[in-house]
Amino acid sequence: MTLSRIAAALSLLFFATPALADTWIDNVEGISINRDGSVDRFAGLVVDEDGRITEVLDYGDRPTREIDYRVDGQGRVMVPGFIDAHAHLMGLGLGTLVLDLSETRSLQQALDAIAAYAAANPERPWIIGRGWNQELWGLGRFPTAAELDAVVSDRPVWLERVDGHAGWANSLALRAGNVTSDTADPAGGRIERGANGVPAGVLIDSAMPLIAGQVPPPLAEDRDVALYNAQSLLLRHGITGMADMGTTVEDWMTIRRAGDAGWLQIRVMAYADSVDSMLLIGGPGPTQWLYDDRLRLNGVKLYLDGALGSRGALLKEDYEDDHGNRGLPLLSGTQLRNLMSRAALDNFQVAVHAIGDEANDVALSAIEELSVDYTGDRRWRIEHAQIVDPADIARFGQGGIVASMQPVHQTSDMFMAEARLGDDRLGGAYAWRTILENGGTLAFGTDAPVEPVDPLAGLAVAVSRTNAAGEPDGGWRSDEAITREQALAAYTANAAYAGFAEGRFGRLVPGERADFVFLSADPLMAAPNVIRDIEVLETWIAGRRVYASSIAQPLVEGPQQSE
Amino acid sequence: MTLSRIAAALSLLFFATPALADTWIDNVEGISINRDGSVDRFAGLVVDEDGRITEVLDYGDRPTREIDYRVDGQGRVMVPGFIDAHAHLMGLGLGTLVLDLSETRSLQQALDAIAAYAAANPERPWIIGRGWNQELWGLGRFPTAAELDAVVSDRPVWLERVDGHAGWANSLALRAGNVTSDTADPAGGRIERGANGVPAGVLIDSAMPLIAGQVPPPLAEDRDVALYNAQSLLLRHGITGMADMGTTVEDWMTIRRAGDAGWLQIRVMAYADSVDSMLLIGGPGPTQWLYDDRLRLNGVKLYLDGALGSRGALLKEDYEDDHGNRGLPLLSGTQLRNLMSRAALDNFQVAVHAIGDEANDVALSAIEELSVDYTGDRRWRIEHAQIVDPADIARFGQGGIVASMQPVHQTSDMFMAEARLGDDRLGGAYAWRTILENGGTLAFGTDAPVEPVDPLAGLAVAVSRTNAAGEPDGGWRSDEAITREQALAAYTANAAYAGFAEGRFGRLVPGERADFVFLSADPLMAAPNVIRDIEVLETWIAGRRVYASSIAQPLVEGPQQSE
Repeated sequence: MTLSRIAAALSLLFFATPALADTWIDNVEGISINRDGSVDRFAGLVVDEDGRITEVLDYGDRPTREIDYRVDGQGRVMVPGFIDAHAHLMGLGLGTLVLDLSETRSLQQALDAIAAYAAANPERPWIIGRGWNQELWGLGRFPTAAELDAVVSDRPVWLERVDGHAGWANSLALRAGNVTSDTADPAGGRIERGANGVPAGVLIDSAMPLIAGQVPPPLAEDRDVALYNAQSLLLRHGITGMADMGTTVEDWMTIRRAGDAGWLQIRVMAYADSVDSMLLIGGPGPTQWLYDDRLRLNGVKLYLDGALGSRGALLKEDYEDDHGNRGLPLLSGTQLRNLMSRAALDNFQVAVHAIGDEANDVALSAIEELSVDYTGDRRWRIEHAQIVDPADIARFGQGGIVASMQPVHQTSDMFMAEARLGDDRLGGAYAWRTILENGGTLAFGTDAPVEPVDPLAGLAVAVSRTNAAGEPDGGWRSDEAITREQALAAYTANAAYAGFAEGRFGRLVPGERADFVFLSADPLMAAPNVIRDIEVLETWIAGRRVYASSIAQPLVEGPQQSE
Repeated sequence: MTLSRIAAALSLLFFATPALADTWIDNVEGISINRDGSVDRFAGLVVDEDGRITEVLDYGDRPTREIDYRVDGQGRVMVPGFIDAHAHLMGLGLGTLVLDLSETRSLQQALDAIAAYAAANPERPWIIGRGWNQELWGLGRFPTAAELDAVVSDRPVWLERVDGHAGWANSLALRAGNVTSDTADPAGGRIERGANGVPAGVLIDSAMPLIAGQVPPPLAEDRDVALYNAQSLLLRHGITGMADMGTTVEDWMTIRRAGDAGWLQIRVMAYADSVDSMLLIGGPGPTQWLYDDRLRLNGVKLYLDGALGSRGALLKEDYEDDHGNRGLPLLSGTQLRNLMSRAALDNFQVAVHAIGDEANDVALSAIEELSVDYTGDRRWRIEHAQIVDPADIARFGQGGIVASMQPVHQTSDMFMAEARLGDDRLGGAYAWRTILENGGTLAFGTDAPVEPVDPLAGLAVAVSRTNAAGEPDGGWRSDEAITREQALAAYTANAAYAGFAEGRFGRLVPGERADFVFLSADPLMAAPNVIRDIEVLETWIAGRRVYASSIAQPLVEGPQQSE
């Protein structure tokens, strides 16, 4: 049974941590940070049996109450557990279940890996994978369906290229997608062909859904393992809480199963993938905090535009590199207002995905209008807020709006953004400092699995505007860099506030849960390139150790079948 | 806020009952009954802080452990809480939210009640009601849309007649259903009409869905109140556990909200309304027992045929009163096997609705075939099992199959069954004694709200085969009457067993939850007409009093809006 194996694995994880008793965690270089970036330093915490902090101690202080256990922090740096304000829990987890070909260096290596994976997973109806790159293989051509057929002929195989812009199918997958010599290339896509137009095996871009659309949805067992894997990944990167952006009903049920079974550790603030899902999950309003502050449906995520890379982001003017195109609205202004209104009516929180300057303007306008009727503490969120018209930035502060941003997107996208918009229209691009200066709230996230699960990389970018290679020299539009303290606040206290979780977690203060990480260095003292290399030594949630770097992780591997 | 009002109301209910302490419930005429109908009598129970029985005491015994509270049972009769093996939790509850016109004695009284209800419920988009009877009003004709319009003109109104075979609409409801002079009478239905064929307001039988199909689904707030009302009704009738037959995903979410909020008292064994719902709710298998044994998804309910009254039940020979008709199969044998197989694959329990002798034969055959592959303790259930070919009855025992039956259907349906089948084909009709004698397991339910929430009426029927009027004299096919002990076992221990709940509840023995009722008389000693009049004095769940007849019930009334 999958779940019992998970439970057994997880029990190993809680090695030697006191539970259900008052615990003194002593001898730490403790850091807590407030929403405004001000810092509290301390030397110890007292945690009660519910995992809540009862006392924060200075150097030389002793607990005022009787304690049952003392944990020696060995002088290590302790910061609040990172709160990831924007990630995709099940997307991250399901990604761990597919075959990873990114390390293969020849076609033969890839074929061997595929054959081994297929043999190890006899129950899986499709073989799904990703990460291949024929250029790294020195192949000089795309691989073929026939080559795949030679290793897997009993099931469809579908493997995405490393960049996500091509997929490699075997013959059964081509058949499942009804891709034949008669199939025309769809607009924006191409079917690689051999003699007589016979599909050769690789499909490009918009041809990919012909086959990807046939892949069966994951089994519930797979979802459970995926959630467990995602949680393990997040914990090992020091993330103790997250906003799940786009929670489906299946996702919600999976997270509840983990909570019911007692192995949900990470704190999840869920934003449903649609108003329908929101109403089905939440009913008359946001759910309670469940499982000792580990799960709550806060509201809904709405998509207003697409991404900059694919020129889907909504812009006020034409794309610099595609005249006549200003992006594609995914919702009209009226549709957006109707959905926001339906959510706000029952006090659900609204998070609007808006990347381009026009999308941000539309979202800000909708929020401003709705705020007239829906008063009170709403914490409207705009997700990404990547390109904002400088004239619109002050509206974040005026509306008490949360700018939920992902620092690493700045370095991933910077050169592409220049191509899409031209230099003159980037005055409000990834404008963290200006948003803060205008009174906006910044909440930071990783956007995993779109970007790596790595809040420390995000911190490094936030303070330097440079990527891992230190480029560009001096930082990209470095005026928008923020302080270490502001960046850490955006990844902790403000990310919690953005999900109505302040007072529960996000800071290391009395009354909040004892969610923290031990780091190999102090991120408030380190140079950006050092921040990026800081190690997460241990992760603790509610006063219990849930990850330690010195211990081999009991990750549940691969798919399991019931019984 | 609806939920806080519910919580406040419920807190009143737990008046003066000890909690979180060891409790001795003393001085009772205690009865527990085993699956085989054997009886254990006792004088007291000791209940621990989890609501589990730790000791069952004889007369003169004292608890072996220290106790915190002693409750004086005042010599009253205590039996296990009734377990209703087949009812519809949300159907029961939603029925409490609509306008009840069954007590009106004139058209004017009805119109006054409708006007008052509409005024009291300004937020309700439709006014829904039931129970009117123009014959009781002495009207000599059907009421009209115009008469309704005079009291409610701002919203659609839809009111079902007492027998469910007609509905009365106002003009806005007719418009919502697009029912005009041009609308033809559907087969099996009729639209009452005035001059020029203009719809007059009343729609008969299969014309009713034209309007009923337009009624908006209940709001989540309404579902919460409905669940609370249903629970109150069940508790006041001594029902402490139930199998919910046909749980939708919305139903499940509603029950979980109650559990999360802490006001779910009754124990619910859920059977999803479809395999899709089952998989969404349960994921890889039946859920855990949640909320201290108060909720579990056991499996799925499948519908194989319709009802006898509407001649939908599947028969082996033609209907006696409709030659050429043998009923309508709702699933083919292959479909049934596929769905059963999908459920059994992941250890979900299967409950098959089968009323006619052919349907029962088909269900038994499917179970027998599937039992070859799906071994182990499956507890296949057949719901209703009303008309079984005598030649098939032994198969219940051979297959370890649960016959989940509702005694009151026997007296409600007996004369209709004679008309439908003729006397010669009723040898296996409501054949409780024969099923038991052949080794089958009998689990009894009320089928509420199709029949009243009244297990004591069911007990009376089970032992007498007569209705409340004592008819027919001597009982209908009285050979099939069973003993009081067998009947009580079917409403307690066997109903729990039928839902895999033995060891958790259903009997008053050490280790099971202290779910019991105090009755005004001993049902094992009483004549049938006396059993029917036995009062439920108090209902206790997990050692806490959740209903007392001497206390005005704090039922939440009517609809509530958020805020």
